[in-house]
Amino acid sequence: MTANSDFPDALLRTLRDLGAATLHEAQGQTGAIDPAIRPLDPSFRLAGPAFTVDCRPSDNLVLHLALTKAKRGDVLVVDAKAFVAAGPWGDVMTLAAQVAGIAGLVIDGSVRDSQSIIDMGFPVFSRGICIVGTNKNQPGTIGAPVSVGGVRVEAGDVVVGDRDGVVVIPRARAIEVAKLGREREAKEDALRDQIRAGRTTLDVLGLGDSMRRLGMQ
Amino acid sequence: MTANSDFPDALLRTLRDLGAATLHEAQGQTGAIDPAIRPLDPSFRLAGPAFTVDCRPSDNLVLHLALTKAKRGDVLVVDAKAFVAAGPWGDVMTLAAQVAGIAGLVIDGSVRDSQSIIDMGFPVFSRGICIVGTNKNQPGTIGAPVSVGGVRVEAGDVVVGDRDGVVVIPRARAIEVAKLGREREAKEDALRDQIRAGRTTLDVLGLGDSMRRLGMQ
Amino acid sequence: MTANSDFPDALLRTLRDLGAATLHEAQGQTGAIDPAIRPLDPSFRLAGPAFTVDCRPSDNLVLHLALTKAKRGDVLVVDAKAFVAAGPWGDVMTLAAQVAGIAGLVIDGSVRDSQSIIDMGFPVFSRGICIVGTNKNQPGTIGAPVSVGGVRVEAGDVVVGDRDGVVVIPRARAIEVAKLGREREAKEDALRDQIRAGRTTLDVLGLGDSMRRLGMQ
Amino acid sequence: MTANSDFPDALLRTLRDLGAATLHEAQGQTGAIDPAIRPLDPSFRLAGPAFTVDCRPSDNLVLHLALTKAKRGDVLVVDAKAFVAAGPWGDVMTLAAQVAGIAGLVIDGSVRDSQSIIDMGFPVFSRGICIVGTNKNQPGTIGAPVSVGGVRVEAGDVVVGDRDGVVVIPRARAIEVAKLGREREAKEDALRDQIRAGRTTLDVLGLGDSMRRLGMQ
Amino acid sequence: MTANSDFPDALLRTLRDLGAATLHEAQGQTGAIDPAIRPLDPSFRLAGPAFTVDCRPSDNLVLHLALTKAKRGDVLVVDAKAFVAAGPWGDVMTLAAQVAGIAGLVIDGSVRDSQSIIDMGFPVFSRGICIVGTNKNQPGTIGAPVSVGGVRVEAGDVVVGDRDGVVVIPRARAIEVAKLGREREAKEDALRDQIRAGRTTLDVLGLGDSMRRLGMQ
Amino acid sequence: MTANSDFPDALLRTLRDLGAATLHEAQGQTGAIDPAIRPLDPSFRLAGPAFTVDCRPSDNLVLHLALTKAKRGDVLVVDAKAFVAAGPWGDVMTLAAQVAGIAGLVIDGSVRDSQSIIDMGFPVFSRGICIVGTNKNQPGTIGAPVSVGGVRVEAGDVVVGDRDGVVVIPRARAIEVAKLGREREAKEDALRDQIRAGRTTLDVLGLGDSMRRLGMQ
Repeated sequence: MTANSDFPDALLRTLRDLGAATLHEAQGQTGAIDPAIRPLDPSFRLAGPAFTVDCRPSDNLVLHLALTKAKRGDVLVVDAKAFVAAGPWGDVMTLAAQVAGIAGLVIDGSVRDSQSIIDMGFPVFSRGICIVGTNKNQPGTIGAPVSVGGVRVEAGDVVVGDRDGVVVIPRARAIEVAKLGREREAKEDALRDQIRAGRTTLDVLGLGDSMRRLGMQ
Repeated sequence: MTANSDFPDALLRTLRDLGAATLHEAQGQTGAIDPAIRPLDPSFRLAGPAFTVDCRPSDNLVLHLALTKAKRGDVLVVDAKAFVAAGPWGDVMTLAAQVAGIAGLVIDGSVRDSQSIIDMGFPVFSRGICIVGTNKNQPGTIGAPVSVGGVRVEAGDVVVGDRDGVVVIPRARAIEVAKLGREREAKEDALRDQIRAGRTTLDVLGLGDSMRRLGMQ
Repeated sequence: MTANSDFPDALLRTLRDLGAATLHEAQGQTGAIDPAIRPLDPSFRLAGPAFTVDCRPSDNLVLHLALTKAKRGDVLVVDAKAFVAAGPWGDVMTLAAQVAGIAGLVIDGSVRDSQSIIDMGFPVFSRGICIVGTNKNQPGTIGAPVSVGGVRVEAGDVVVGDRDGVVVIPRARAIEVAKLGREREAKEDALRDQIRAGRTTLDVLGLGDSMRRLGMQ
Repeated sequence: MTANSDFPDALLRTLRDLGAATLHEAQGQTGAIDPAIRPLDPSFRLAGPAFTVDCRPSDNLVLHLALTKAKRGDVLVVDAKAFVAAGPWGDVMTLAAQVAGIAGLVIDGSVRDSQSIIDMGFPVFSRGICIVGTNKNQPGTIGAPVSVGGVRVEAGDVVVGDRDGVVVIPRARAIEVAKLGREREAKEDALRDQIRAGRTTLDVLGLGDSMRRLGMQ
Repeated sequence: MTANSDFPDALLRTLRDLGAATLHEAQGQTGAIDPAIRPLDPSFRLAGPAFTVDCRPSDNLVLHLALTKAKRGDVLVVDAKAFVAAGPWGDVMTLAAQVAGIAGLVIDGSVRDSQSIIDMGFPVFSRGICIVGTNKNQPGTIGAPVSVGGVRVEAGDVVVGDRDGVVVIPRARAIEVAKLGREREAKEDALRDQIRAGRTTLDVLGLGDSMRRLGMQ
Repeated sequence: MTANSDFPDALLRTLRDLGAATLHEAQGQTGAIDPAIRPLDPSFRLAGPAFTVDCRPSDNLVLHLALTKAKRGDVLVVDAKAFVAAGPWGDVMTLAAQVAGIAGLVIDGSVRDSQSIIDMGFPVFSRGICIVGTNKNQPGTIGAPVSVGGVRVEAGDVVVGDRDGVVVIPRARAIEVAKLGREREAKEDALRDQIRAGRTTLDVLGLGDSMRRLGMQ
């Protein structure tokens, strides 16, 4: 994980380790990006503040601008209009991102050079993989709110991704959500102990009333 | 493989080893579940009698009931209405399933905590992966026939899954289908010997008449 | 890689190593097969001349004919009408293909016996995996132009596939495209050196004019 | 509506007029065919006993057999494997169906000659429309249970379709479901009167308890 | 169009007549809802302030609450999680909406009773049509921001829909966007006059420079 | 139908009247464009030589060039990369096309202003409808072979579209295919007479042998 000036490393590490599913639940079942946006490699884990990019499908000019503006530890979060028939990101840009200390990429679109990117260990979450390259003719914006996989992301929101998917945590709630996530994990650990001791989840979660109300035996 | 009171271990092991594709062919090309329902991990292999569950999308109350009713060795077969934007099953339920000796899960829907489930070695076949959790408010049924991935499954039907997909074998045909599968495998082994000896599949399979009738050279 | 009489081994090896994304770009952003057609195993790499096959969905009679006509080193390129609910190719045909020295398979359809095929090391690129077998009743053609994943492929065109996808190179352009691909790679290597030395891609690629014209800072 | 020997005309007319949505609810929210299977023309309405057909994608031989075996008033219910890239049914077969007194067609696949079929007033419900014709080489079955749009249909089950979609009613329940449907309609008429009189649905449906339990104001 | 207390009728009428495509362009190419959300009947036109609703798939309890809280002229804008396999809205609710003076419905989900709704003339824009009804067990929220068809909608934003699709205009920009839309329309009228007079769009839009820069003749 | 210098009006009228499905069959079941590309209005019928256009998704610069180069009676056939989230064609361009005598548009992408286009009576066949406009920054080509809906189209090939879909006829085969289509229609008329006279299609089409070979009764 690359150091970032906006959030302490320890906080980002905690969020990354808690994982997307736990954090999504912890912050009240919000911020889940479309699960069709998946890690290139299932072992990828990612946490960092969003550097937002809006680009046209089939053009990556603005991504080159983003590479010069993002800070160390930022995660590029790119609305490429869910267009999967071209890959505006490849291995050369991955190298540039790593040199700039960028932490990873979440893109609502495709990438190419997938094996090289995996070999370089740069965590990419994308909707697809496609060998088709793009042009460099279209305008785009950086730093403005974007919609990625159905979720509105603002610059500085924290993005956490793993094998399960990607969640977006509003910047102002990052510390609180980490705390809620740890509490949830502790609660689940207690649950696990009770389950191992032979109790049912019906019992431990107190689901009897709901079962009776709905006439389930 | 967990011992099950309805089928001998040896039978289930045979079915699992024959695999979904061979069994599907052996029983007359029936019982194939929609191939979009896939193993979380490609190494997963599964065989056991179905414990059927019908649940509403975005609610998992009835799954907690199922965890208390399924027998050792059962496979939970869940119609979650092909809704992939929420994962009604996660790692805590996986633990409860393992404690109860449940053999695996086939769900027409999504799951979350995919890495933990893989690490726990619990074979899950699902339509998707999604970090979104669910509620516990809706009714559901257990033990009744369900439709999963386009196939009607009755309680006690045998479910066999592997990297290729999932097949459903009617309870009453399990022994016969295992026998047919072994015969098919033996026949294919003979075919392989002939192919290795240099004969063509056209020749070995006797496809000459069809070729001539259709005017193919 | 299997020796082929139409193209020198060294040329095919070069094309395979350059990879689908680089070759697609090198030949002017053409020939990209629908990225939904993917390798069964991400490590598969493939390069060879196309042996084209047109078959009906849910029937594989003509594939058995193709197995007897394709030359060593050929890649079977099969239009199975994008039908993914049946797998006209399995492990016995894979064995026959290997005995015949066929280099691999690209199919706009599904295959079955995926684990065995991977274990046998036969590179297959398909739209899906499905346990459903097929019949042997329908006509089909070999050697004529086919449309696979949206790309027209003629017999003898070179097909190159890897984790990123599959590209089709017109037969007459194979040597030229290999050369263009190597030049492109050399150019990208130079780019990488400049990036490692601290220059931005905006600068190295000379994107300033475009940025100014579009009013991007 | 064509007379049918298995069900009185009046019953079929009642079912058709109640419509698919009401009947689905009346029989306990079961039997809904995948809503992607839609009427060629939104004005089509259909009710009749199923004559089931299982055919291979891209082949219509068995449909010609079905045309000779179905009884007056029957609805052809065809599992064409959800393959939409060929239309095994066109205007000539429509004429043959009308001559035979067949009431309509529900097909999990495509049809062609859509304008002619609409002009002929033959109610067709299909997954798609496609100009691609088919062959006549493959086997198929008639009269056995089929899976159409995710629902198992047995010969003689009653199929009701309209602009909303298609529902399948088990043969033995047809009279009961018609009665339940009429009761439901009467209840809804009463509801409508209360709504027109100014009462809210919250009030009329007695949803106050659920609202309070869930903390909704 | 029903009178609404938040926006003058004349403004809403202007927005409705300008139409979704013009308004989308006028406000800077933002606010376009996923085009898969379409009018039940192509003649439907709709403009009004959003009354936002967040509901679980397969449950419509909160919609009954919304019917009692929305104001005359409001448009219900419902995030039903893109679940199309159940229709939480039907003709009885349509009647209740009309009695309450609600202007229309935009739902990221399905509806049922489509013919009745069309006959009642209540403009509905939905992702699908489905006969499957829902339960009334789940919580939901009203008045909070929702995500519908990939667009964030806040209560009071103006929603405009027609055959082309649906656009969302931020509440504070409604007057400005109406003005921009009218200007755009005037400009297009002038364009049309020039085109009718024989000038090309290349010429009228001044695209010569771009053509030359890109080497297009 | 607009007069065209390359094909006699009578030929184009014949092709249009024969319709896409008949012509597809007549020319040997080839040339069917993906059925997801459909007429904006079901009454649209179209026949004319293709004027091919290749454009980037989300950019319509080259379409303005095409409007100045296409001849009277041409059909614009546009590969817009199957991108449906933007509509590069609207009512102003429709006017320009009509002034130029262009016969219609087939686009593998979306259009906007659908109601106006229908009102203007300009036959458009598209993959989608979308209010999102495009830019005018990207290069494109005219007159070169394109791939539209999975079919390769060369300039001058004849395109025929109706409610059933779109078929492409190679330029050199237009007269022959018209003749084959008329013969096919005559043959179908004879078939219809026999069917009306009470013969079955099994009998008239001589399907008895196939039925017996496959063991169908």
